[in-house]
Amino acid sequence: MAAPIVLLTDFGARDSYAGIMKGVIASLSPRALVIDLCHEIPAQDVRAAAFQLRAGAPYFPKNAIFLCVVDPGVGSARKIIWARTAEHQFLAPDNGLLSWLESPILEIRELSNPKLWLSQVSATFQGRDILAPAAGHLSRGGKPAALGPRTAEMRRIPFPRALAASGRVKGEILCVDHFGNAVTNISRAELPHAWPIQFRGRHVGAIRSHYASVPAGASLALFGSSGFLELSVRQGSFAREFKASVGDPVECISPRRLR
Amino acid sequence: MAAPIVLLTDFGARDSYAGIMKGVIASLSPRALVIDLCHEIPAQDVRAAAFQLRAGAPYFPKNAIFLCVVDPGVGSARKIIWARTAEHQFLAPDNGLLSWLESPILEIRELSNPKLWLSQVSATFQGRDILAPAAGHLSRGGKPAALGPRTAEMRRIPFPRALAASGRVKGEILCVDHFGNAVTNISRAELPHAWPIQFRGRHVGAIRSHYASVPAGASLALFGSSGFLELSVRQGSFAREFKASVGDPVECISPRRLR
Amino acid sequence: MAAPIVLLTDFGARDSYAGIMKGVIASLSPRALVIDLCHEIPAQDVRAAAFQLRAGAPYFPKNAIFLCVVDPGVGSARKIIWARTAEHQFLAPDNGLLSWLESPILEIRELSNPKLWLSQVSATFQGRDILAPAAGHLSRGGKPAALGPRTAEMRRIPFPRALAASGRVKGEILCVDHFGNAVTNISRAELPHAWPIQFRGRHVGAIRSHYASVPAGASLALFGSSGFLELSVRQGSFAREFKASVGDPVECISPRRLR
Repeated sequence: MAAPIVLLTDFGARDSYAGIMKGVIASLSPRALVIDLCHEIPAQDVRAAAFQLRAGAPYFPKNAIFLCVVDPGVGSARKIIWARTAEHQFLAPDNGLLSWLESPILEIRELSNPKLWLSQVSATFQGRDILAPAAGHLSRGGKPAALGPRTAEMRRIPFPRALAASGRVKGEILCVDHFGNAVTNISRAELPHAWPIQFRGRHVGAIRSHYASVPAGASLALFGSSGFLELSVRQGSFAREFKASVGDPVECISPRRLR
Repeated sequence: MAAPIVLLTDFGARDSYAGIMKGVIASLSPRALVIDLCHEIPAQDVRAAAFQLRAGAPYFPKNAIFLCVVDPGVGSARKIIWARTAEHQFLAPDNGLLSWLESPILEIRELSNPKLWLSQVSATFQGRDILAPAAGHLSRGGKPAALGPRTAEMRRIPFPRALAASGRVKGEILCVDHFGNAVTNISRAELPHAWPIQFRGRHVGAIRSHYASVPAGASLALFGSSGFLELSVRQGSFAREFKASVGDPVECISPRRLR
Repeated sequence: MAAPIVLLTDFGARDSYAGIMKGVIASLSPRALVIDLCHEIPAQDVRAAAFQLRAGAPYFPKNAIFLCVVDPGVGSARKIIWARTAEHQFLAPDNGLLSWLESPILEIRELSNPKLWLSQVSATFQGRDILAPAAGHLSRGGKPAALGPRTAEMRRIPFPRALAASGRVKGEILCVDHFGNAVTNISRAELPHAWPIQFRGRHVGAIRSHYASVPAGASLALFGSSGFLELSVRQGSFAREFKASVGDPVECISPRRLR
């Protein structure tokens, strides 16, 4: 059975770019299940893609191949790589997109075998010309070694860890979702106490277990589906009501310090 | 053959939420066809979801499983239910989403068997943690009885029926589509005569059989693809030109009354 | 094995229209792979659809069936046609949508056999009622001849060719993509020299081989993934910075003339 392929891009829905990659995949591995993880990564935002990949990958079948195209350097000398964890395979430009996976990377290869590429490679759409053919190759059982030689390194972007010191945990907003929830970089391990949350000098409310524990329109914080602290407004939009954007600081302060 | 799964949510396209549910499904029922009915239900708008489900369900194969997640009460004590009509199975929060199906509901169960859930259940994404695993279970032939015990009741929202009396039919706009067509709650049976349509005191035009029966830019009414009266502007947007929104009243008045 | 079906529409994502067509297809050809080429063609813009189809079709498997619904004349007397090139089959309203395919059309039929349609045909959603059933029929191996009789003609829209004369190449913008790149109608054959590009009286920059050959924020021109000249801003949006829209003129002038 063909291995499933999971797409993560910043292509949006306006054009045919994602559809064309699926055409290339279907030409090579016609029985492959192709799943859209997300095509609305902000244009060229490698960190946003790295975060979505970290949050999403654990929920996919063990043999899934992730085809990731957020590629500000397309056409330049940046490499395209294949990487493998214990669970999954990944194809991506070598720009840090694979940095934040929870599962350690066990092997990396550089895509350098033009025999597996489309016969004409453009300078602007290597997702179609190089990455999709590689995914099709792997999906139908092709060997990773055929893609190109092993390499020891890939670009890594450091994960923006929250800082905990002297009764404060300082974090930041990593992403704002469709509902206006602001997902932070503060994990349960980093915030073991239910300390009050501050955002732009305003009190967000205590950490709750679910939205319905506050009235409609009230703000709250909870540990969301990705395991990180999220700031929300019940039946509203935290992002809109608190004018919150990616990168904004979030602070949790021990009540003892506040006294 | 695995049964197809149809997704209806308010998740939008910006995040990976729908993609992650597909990952969970593919892990459990790797050969299942998964079809996106719609992911752009307005956030937490159960009525809009109920209407799309009513309009769409009849066009899906008899064995289809509808996985519906528009869930303002996620994480609270609201139930999650499975329901069955003669044609289809449905999984949804118990909030009225299944109220407007044309086909009668024959059996309801409450999802209460944590053995079928993901090992960790979040308070914010039970589509991933409870509903998608249930869909995977059913798709690969698992028994509905394993999900949980039968229950006699589910929440029902009354369908906003049009009112017909003394030469008038009073209805409302149920949804505005991508093209700016305003779909009303007035069915053919409720408006047997081709009475003139009024909207915000303006005459919309007579009921026509198709768009091309009026010139470009002219307004018209016709019975649309969901069987309800729709208000349109040919090669334009009724919603924009008439400033029409969901909930706005629409009136059809007998010409005899107008005289 | 069922033949894959590729969808190209102006339906957007807001409604269930594309999902419902997939339901109809799954009812008829449950094993068919269905691929979304694009659903965000501007409403009723047949030329934009024709261009996306031209650019995308070559990347799909040889047996693919393209189901195209951009249909300003839905419900009127316009025909619905099936057409075949050496590689692919196409279903579309007869409005010019198939005009710009690179591969010549070898056979055309008019869809006129109501036995293959849904039992009720609406005036507003023939994608669901006529085209999707035809795609399902073809996908599971049904004969094209069953759809209806051969016809010699279909509507054709002339491709807006660039004009080359006396040291100038005059073209226009055919589409603006999600990243703000402006794709023109100027092909490599029409612009054999690396002449400077003018847009709205501003110099766009020389033709480059890839984005990274200019600094971030600088404008450039390159031959893009569809084989046409594209105007871009590296890590920015050409459309936004140059206020460029579909139809705007683009000029390439021989440096000898500029001197």
